[in-house]
Amino acid sequence: MTFILSVVVAVLGLAAVGYAWLIYRKVLEFDIGNKRIAELSGIIHRGAMAFLKKEYMWLVPFVCVVGLLLWIGISFGSAFAFVLGAFCSAAAGWLSMYVATQANGRTTFAAITSPGKALDMAFSGGSIVGMTVVGIGLVGIAFAFLLLSVESMTAFGMGASSIALFARVGGGIYTKAADVGADLVGKVEAGIPEDDPRNPAVIADNVGDNVGDVAGMSADLFESYVNAIIAAIAIGFTFTGLYPDGEALGMWGAAFPLLLAGLGVLVSISSCFVISTDIPVIGGFVQRGMALAEKVPFVKDMLDRVRGGDAAFALRAGLFTAGAKMIVGTLVLSVIFFVTKGVNVFLAVTSGVAAGVLIGVITEYYTSSAYKPVKAVAAASDAGPATVILSGIALGMKSAAAPIILICLSTLLSYWLAGIFGVACAAVGMLSITGIALSVDAYGPISDNAGGIAEMSGLPHEVRKITDKLDSVGNTTAAMGKGLAIGSAALTALALFVAYAQATKLTKIDIMDPRVIVGMLLGGMLPFVFCALSIEAVGRAAQAMIDEVRRQFREISGIMDGTGDPDYEKCVTISTSAALHEMVAPGVLAIVSPVAVGLVLGKAALGGLLGGAIVTGVIMALFMANAGGAWDNAKKYIEEGNYGGKGTPNHAAAVVGDTVGDPFKDTSGPSLNILIKLMTVVALVLAPWF
Amino acid sequence: MTFILSVVVAVLGLAAVGYAWLIYRKVLEFDIGNKRIAELSGIIHRGAMAFLKKEYMWLVPFVCVVGLLLWIGISFGSAFAFVLGAFCSAAAGWLSMYVATQANGRTTFAAITSPGKALDMAFSGGSIVGMTVVGIGLVGIAFAFLLLSVESMTAFGMGASSIALFARVGGGIYTKAADVGADLVGKVEAGIPEDDPRNPAVIADNVGDNVGDVAGMSADLFESYVNAIIAAIAIGFTFTGLYPDGEALGMWGAAFPLLLAGLGVLVSISSCFVISTDIPVIGGFVQRGMALAEKVPFVKDMLDRVRGGDAAFALRAGLFTAGAKMIVGTLVLSVIFFVTKGVNVFLAVTSGVAAGVLIGVITEYYTSSAYKPVKAVAAASDAGPATVILSGIALGMKSAAAPIILICLSTLLSYWLAGIFGVACAAVGMLSITGIALSVDAYGPISDNAGGIAEMSGLPHEVRKITDKLDSVGNTTAAMGKGLAIGSAALTALALFVAYAQATKLTKIDIMDPRVIVGMLLGGMLPFVFCALSIEAVGRAAQAMIDEVRRQFREISGIMDGTGDPDYEKCVTISTSAALHEMVAPGVLAIVSPVAVGLVLGKAALGGLLGGAIVTGVIMALFMANAGGAWDNAKKYIEEGNYGGKGTPNHAAAVVGDTVGDPFKDTSGPSLNILIKLMTVVALVLAPWF
Repeated sequence: MTFILSVVVAVLGLAAVGYAWLIYRKVLEFDIGNKRIAELSGIIHRGAMAFLKKEYMWLVPFVCVVGLLLWIGISFGSAFAFVLGAFCSAAAGWLSMYVATQANGRTTFAAITSPGKALDMAFSGGSIVGMTVVGIGLVGIAFAFLLLSVESMTAFGMGASSIALFARVGGGIYTKAADVGADLVGKVEAGIPEDDPRNPAVIADNVGDNVGDVAGMSADLFESYVNAIIAAIAIGFTFTGLYPDGEALGMWGAAFPLLLAGLGVLVSISSCFVISTDIPVIGGFVQRGMALAEKVPFVKDMLDRVRGGDAAFALRAGLFTAGAKMIVGTLVLSVIFFVTKGVNVFLAVTSGVAAGVLIGVITEYYTSSAYKPVKAVAAASDAGPATVILSGIALGMKSAAAPIILICLSTLLSYWLAGIFGVACAAVGMLSITGIALSVDAYGPISDNAGGIAEMSGLPHEVRKITDKLDSVGNTTAAMGKGLAIGSAALTALALFVAYAQATKLTKIDIMDPRVIVGMLLGGMLPFVFCALSIEAVGRAAQAMIDEVRRQFREISGIMDGTGDPDYEKCVTISTSAALHEMVAPGVLAIVSPVAVGLVLGKAALGGLLGGAIVTGVIMALFMANAGGAWDNAKKYIEEGNYGGKGTPNHAAAVVGDTVGDPFKDTSGPSLNILIKLMTVVALVLAPWF
Repeated sequence: MTFILSVVVAVLGLAAVGYAWLIYRKVLEFDIGNKRIAELSGIIHRGAMAFLKKEYMWLVPFVCVVGLLLWIGISFGSAFAFVLGAFCSAAAGWLSMYVATQANGRTTFAAITSPGKALDMAFSGGSIVGMTVVGIGLVGIAFAFLLLSVESMTAFGMGASSIALFARVGGGIYTKAADVGADLVGKVEAGIPEDDPRNPAVIADNVGDNVGDVAGMSADLFESYVNAIIAAIAIGFTFTGLYPDGEALGMWGAAFPLLLAGLGVLVSISSCFVISTDIPVIGGFVQRGMALAEKVPFVKDMLDRVRGGDAAFALRAGLFTAGAKMIVGTLVLSVIFFVTKGVNVFLAVTSGVAAGVLIGVITEYYTSSAYKPVKAVAAASDAGPATVILSGIALGMKSAAAPIILICLSTLLSYWLAGIFGVACAAVGMLSITGIALSVDAYGPISDNAGGIAEMSGLPHEVRKITDKLDSVGNTTAAMGKGLAIGSAALTALALFVAYAQATKLTKIDIMDPRVIVGMLLGGMLPFVFCALSIEAVGRAAQAMIDEVRRQFREISGIMDGTGDPDYEKCVTISTSAALHEMVAPGVLAIVSPVAVGLVLGKAALGGLLGGAIVTGVIMALFMANAGGAWDNAKKYIEEGNYGGKGTPNHAAAVVGDTVGDPFKDTSGPSLNILIKLMTVVALVLAPWF
């Protein structure tokens, strides 16, 4: 049974990788017929890969040391799983960025021809990223599941989480340092436009988009995906309450989340056809199917809108199609597995998915300039930067309320319907369509980069307009992805937390025990300290970049009139080394704290620590992400001409908000989701010690 | 025994009130020999009292309704205790402000004569405030203790807490609206100095200092003081573990915290003599004693420095003397009560006091411009307002770490030494010298006001210099008071939390129960929502004030050249009505949330809610208070001439930080301490419902 299950899951994973490979071949076949574009894309590609190579060189000793400690302290199986998880995460990040930095230039070139072609190219790049991540995830889990015990498997998640944390923090520091350096000195002080080739930090800035938004996000979602599945497996094995006579689910409890995820892969692939209409599947199988489907007038209309380049419609159609299929599939799978109780499990999963989607809608409400909250932040610019900051902070804090209530409702409901297994499966359900959700996410930075390349290679303004349109659509749909990421992080962390308690044979974690409340206070404090460290790291790195860009403008003659070449390489090096140095402290804090508290104050205190960290971590993640997003879009709203537009004191005030929001939304905020899971999974893996 | 104890405690309380009365007579005897000063002091006095009157009018129906609900739902005793607690808190706030607004003008006038006289007058005003608050607190508790059951007594704390929350939030909104209005339009736009009589908001600003820093703080400390004592009594009665054969402490468990507080009153009064050397005690008893003590050369030197007006030395000498006496007294009292276990209790209390003092030192480190953190915030002004904000936020978040660790250590240690009774008594120990600590705190706003009056009445610059010196010394010693306030809030909340669990007969509050973790998430979210509401309230109120001040400058001709009189009254009305309207939502949130969660999700979930709220509440309180304090002092540091001083872009950037910090440190931050205790005590009082 284990063998068959592993093979099925591995095959589904390989299907995703195979699909990614097909699309990759298609992308490569599309030649960039413009030398300048090819050159710029190449520079960005090499800069990004150089960063990742250096980052991984830093992480190899870390992985080896932790692996060795696990081997000595726990078991060979755990050590192996940890290294495997770390390796798979690194591979997913590497391949994602390898491909994304080849798709950016092609998207620019395609935009010269038509919006439809550009959408197809950008989304093709994105879907390679999405499918590679879930494919590697499933294959890795299948492999670990086949060879290892469930206890050891949790170390796979720990490996993935630790790489993800470093990638998110490092990538976040890289991209924000470059961004602030490029903006503050280039745009504000020297007065040259965004993405102007005279700006020495412009390449670092474009590399940063890939390092942060592609490699960082891929590692992040890889971590979410595998940890949700692993938590569900760990709980499913021993879970009683769904089968008559209180029988444990055993292998069925592992099979259900695995097949749910596998189903998600099939759904994701088949929904990609809606967005990217030019799929080169061997033997023309898909083409023939699509030709048949197009006989239905409704489908034909839909595909025509997509081919015409209506990106907003295409992405939404793809996501909704996937969601609808997934709901039907989950119902079928649940009933097969749990017969009469199947509906319970189905509703538990659906409640999680519904909560995730609604959190996405709320995120959109609080961060899009179409609604009142962001408009209020923009309006606050009338009284200067201080009120912009205060209104953004208040917005962020308030915005945590509704998502938290939704998470609570979904937790209570899925627990009531199907116990903690229901909670765990709800998280898997949310992440099952990661394949297509991440495709849509990764499409964003590719379009953004394509715009940058268009600007730098001096293409006509219309090309930039097309890529800008693609980019802005991506930002909107990304809100949905964020909602799922935060919601699933909360539920996964709760499931892992229960798995930890089971593993340490804690029958209760009683807040009235002073060690537990002390643990909670310490755990609640960690996200604050973590954010402080990462904000300060961004500040220091940005300062180094500002100094360097100022130096180049001062010392290299002829930059401004185009006769002197800025030293792009130097800026890339600064971002790289700053990111690598600064990611260490927050990462170590996350891993060492649970170990220290567990060893000194015992397993109950560690339980309190995890509880406290989950509570403040989830709330802070919402606060920081939404405040940052709101400031960003308030600035863009003013740049569209509201409150006087660019160049006014209102705009200057909004820029202050945006700069404060940068590390909030791109460094500290998203890292918190990983932080809480990493701490919990570390405790779970090391449970035998406590 | 109850009777004797009540009488003893009431007598000690009356001693404090009597001492305050003596000092008050001394203050009144000092005539203000300058018509302009007397007039301005009168305007501020009337404005402040008018606000408080209106505020209490708003609160009367609230108190009546809640009292009625308690009568119907719980018992007459609880209703009576609630109304009594609310009344005592209101009386303490009223008397404090009544006196402080009479001492401000006298301090100005005294400063014309000598620094020593000014110090004496300002501190006399402060000590009336301090002694009134603790005196009313002790008398009220003695009265409740004599007449009511311990269960009903907790409602006394609930009454005090709810008035305190409204007073803090309302006062915070009032003072910040006036401050921002006066600064932004008067100082920045019109370019006139601070406290210039041409500024229409100048009176509202000076009234605000009293409303926020005197009335708000008095209600706040009154709440802390009585709740700490009540929590210790509630726990002490049934506490077993200090007497042989596991006997419950019974009446002794109530008597110990009561007498500890009573001892603190004697210590406070006797230590005031060190600071205010001119004490008119009937029969010259004190004078004779002091004359005798002065024969010791060391004491004479000390008193000479104080008489010379060395305020920093005087305040510190007073506090240290009090602390030393209190330690000796606690040891004696503990050994009398608990014989061999007395040392345990003594050490538990001392660990709490030590933690409180150390938190004060840390607060000072993070918020004084003498140390690295604030200097780093000032240095960040080189890159503009955004980096000032980011570095301040990072500083605030980081600054929570050490105090939380100290609170954890002190909790573990006092729990280990003397159980939860030890934790509760540690909080009482921290607050026992509230009498003198609050005297030192309240001395600050009196000196501040004295400076404002000096400016407005056009006195020579030297007078202002003297009051400024007094004021800045007060700011430094106030850090110690903040440390004790936060430390005691955490310990008191924990003790009340345990009392709640005992009252609802919860044997455990298990985080693994999904209702508890859901409660924790909701509880953790509340401080964020509460802060958002109060920040937004300040923003709206400040905006109304800005509009009004701009209008007056525009419409009233001759304001700037002194031929037209600004309409001070209008600004006072705006601050008043904004404060009253805006304090409702946050206040209601604090009271309704625990009730709703308890009724809907049950008592375990409510336990989780309280735990979550305590964790994030304490951390957020530290974050906001320290970030705000750091921005304030970074601005002052630049104004002293560093980084170019006033008028530079660096100064403008620091002003943005200061404005953001204003609601952080004066509205949201300090309210959080009250919020967590109010929520816990509401749950405790309503325990019979759940």
